Amino acid sequence: MAKTQRKIVTLLTDFGTADPYVGAMKGVLLGTPDVEIVDICHEVPAHGIAAAAFVLAHAAPYFPPGTVHVVVVDPGVGSERRILAGVFGEHTYLFPDNGVITYVAQSLPLRALAIVRNSRYIPGGASATFHGRDIFAPVAGHLLAGVPPRDLGPQPDRYKLLDIPEPAHGEGSILGAVLYVDRFGNLITNIARDMLLARNWDPARLRVLCAGRDAGMLQGTYCGVPSGAPLALVNSMRLIEVAVNGGRACDVFNASPGTPVEVRP
Amino acid sequence: MAKTQRKIVTLLTDFGTADPYVGAMKGVLLGTPDVEIVDICHEVPAHGIAAAAFVLAHAAPYFPPGTVHVVVVDPGVGSERRILAGVFGEHTYLFPDNGVITYVAQSLPLRALAIVRNSRYIPGGASATFHGRDIFAPVAGHLLAGVPPRDLGPQPDRYKLLDIPEPAHGEGSILGAVLYVDRFGNLITNIARDMLLARNWDPARLRVLCAGRDAGMLQGTYCGVPSGAPLALVNSMRLIEVAVNGGRACDVFNASPGTPVEVRP
Amino acid sequence: MAKTQRKIVTLLTDFGTADPYVGAMKGVLLGTPDVEIVDICHEVPAHGIAAAAFVLAHAAPYFPPGTVHVVVVDPGVGSERRILAGVFGEHTYLFPDNGVITYVAQSLPLRALAIVRNSRYIPGGASATFHGRDIFAPVAGHLLAGVPPRDLGPQPDRYKLLDIPEPAHGEGSILGAVLYVDRFGNLITNIARDMLLARNWDPARLRVLCAGRDAGMLQGTYCGVPSGAPLALVNSMRLIEVAVNGGRACDVFNASPGTPVEVRP
Repeated sequence: MAKTQRKIVTLLTDFGTADPYVGAMKGVLLGTPDVEIVDICHEVPAHGIAAAAFVLAHAAPYFPPGTVHVVVVDPGVGSERRILAGVFGEHTYLFPDNGVITYVAQSLPLRALAIVRNSRYIPGGASATFHGRDIFAPVAGHLLAGVPPRDLGPQPDRYKLLDIPEPAHGEGSILGAVLYVDRFGNLITNIARDMLLARNWDPARLRVLCAGRDAGMLQGTYCGVPSGAPLALVNSMRLIEVAVNGGRACDVFNASPGTPVEVRP
Repeated sequence: MAKTQRKIVTLLTDFGTADPYVGAMKGVLLGTPDVEIVDICHEVPAHGIAAAAFVLAHAAPYFPPGTVHVVVVDPGVGSERRILAGVFGEHTYLFPDNGVITYVAQSLPLRALAIVRNSRYIPGGASATFHGRDIFAPVAGHLLAGVPPRDLGPQPDRYKLLDIPEPAHGEGSILGAVLYVDRFGNLITNIARDMLLARNWDPARLRVLCAGRDAGMLQGTYCGVPSGAPLALVNSMRLIEVAVNGGRACDVFNASPGTPVEVRP
Repeated sequence: MAKTQRKIVTLLTDFGTADPYVGAMKGVLLGTPDVEIVDICHEVPAHGIAAAAFVLAHAAPYFPPGTVHVVVVDPGVGSERRILAGVFGEHTYLFPDNGVITYVAQSLPLRALAIVRNSRYIPGGASATFHGRDIFAPVAGHLLAGVPPRDLGPQPDRYKLLDIPEPAHGEGSILGAVLYVDRFGNLITNIARDMLLARNWDPARLRVLCAGRDAGMLQGTYCGVPSGAPLALVNSMRLIEVAVNGGRACDVFNASPGTPVEVRP
């Protein structure tokens, strides 16, 4: 392992893949020697800060140590909103201070944080509308080249976190909500496996309700019920997920982020 | 060519590009030194095994020898369905045993096949819902690092193939069907150029019907007919394709996979 | 900088990302040693030459010197339309001669241009429908390996440019049009910042009308007006853009490419 560390930079944006924006960012990034660009996702809904925060937290931590993650879901571009560079766990994140770091910040230890301000690393004449190309990409290049976040600017007193709904822990049930709907129509909730374990509930004897309707007993896999039937399980994020075997739970339950989900013995 | 072979891994999934799933897989894969990740496609319809089988067969074989192709279109995740690693032609394929390998298996020689079972190469605690991240990605890393398929588990007696419709060869015609509709609305059929050659038919004098309607004489190119007119030709896959010059044949012929297509002199 | 130059090739197509076409092109390209493939965009509307020309011009120039850009938006595939290889500025472009190079050609100096014709670099038996895989990919490999465009074929007398609408410069106003609508619904026009500067107009006192309706005074950023309000600004391409803070200008103004936009003091 005397080998030089790879210089991996990931991109997570709401730019879509039809416009020139992602290509322009990649072009600038490739000006840094040896950089390797990996797309996490560009199809976050436009201005979808909460969705981007969710995607980031469930993809970024799987990358090798030293990876730089660039997040440009940035409806406040050009305003006084700050750009932050933070080390959480073993990765560096470059992101607008709008809450997109929320789930990462909740799950990984913060090791360094700086406001991106040092003009030495920001080319003059950044446009008012495309900081992804004009600030994020060149600053990510400097981070990959070894510039520590503290050289980018002062440490902020605080940074923005989204107001994430927490499940209500009742006597005989946990009442949470849908956080995210994925491509398959699966409903991912804010009820974590650890909450069930903390109650000493028998996972094999838990009933789940979604939007007040029965989603059955907690299953081990999607195939634990007949095709077309609803189910709930602990998913790969260790969160309770409501699904339909071979179908789309979001349609069956008419559910979207915020829809209530209840788990009870 | 004393140069070390590149370690190329391709990804073909139905995960879409809005969710964290593709990013998480890429993160795990990048834990293998020197791996290069190439996206074939993530927009296969959800649970679209037949479409994925078609895309795989018409993209994967063009890669350099030694490439590892990872296919995660896997509605049976978590069930008893097996994961297989097979060498077909000059590439290694890692895929769920659900028929997604069908067209590759029909066109390339099978050189090795194994059930992925050896716990040495499968991290403990794979989730029930995301084997792409928990099994396919780390096993692909081992394959790229030189582990032969036989080390992954026993050879299966058989593996699943899709029940693909074969054209009916009549006295004066070949009666096939649409297999796949592409982004341009072109209708790709299961009638191969070789079937026409075997009949000694003059390609310049063949008439094609789609859904019982005239698609004209076989052409050499899309531009062989006026703009907006239908046509048929032998496409880049050496299959008969029904198209509309500058238009969408799927709309003009109200066609989809299964729609009958006939070729006759 | 004794380091060998990276061999970067970008792809800009209208192939979408559900079909095997992009994967097949990437497979062929990876046959060139050390090549690095970067996707600019595959979601140009089918046969969308004008949109592709716009995306190309606003993404390609940001790449490192020596990059080869491959553009396959090619409704004329298989016809007599030519494939050209041109050096504009510090990059090489490989493209069908259908006008897709227009904006690049307007903004960067032409250094070399050739018709791709030399059979030495074109594999025999190119299909009639997929020159991206059969001609563009292998020829791009030769360009990356150092073959100069002049070896590919003769210099053409002329090449096709799109008939781009130019703004009308009236006494008291400039009357242009929407060129491109991006994912956010922003309306990018053909009115350049330089045109305003040439009139010595005070940017802080310019009014913009879109489709005959008031888009307000020229702003510095999207956040210069309340959420939901329309605005205009000079965007990252140095073009006048009509937007809605947090909204979709294309819907608010019912606008699309060609919609008139006026700027006046």
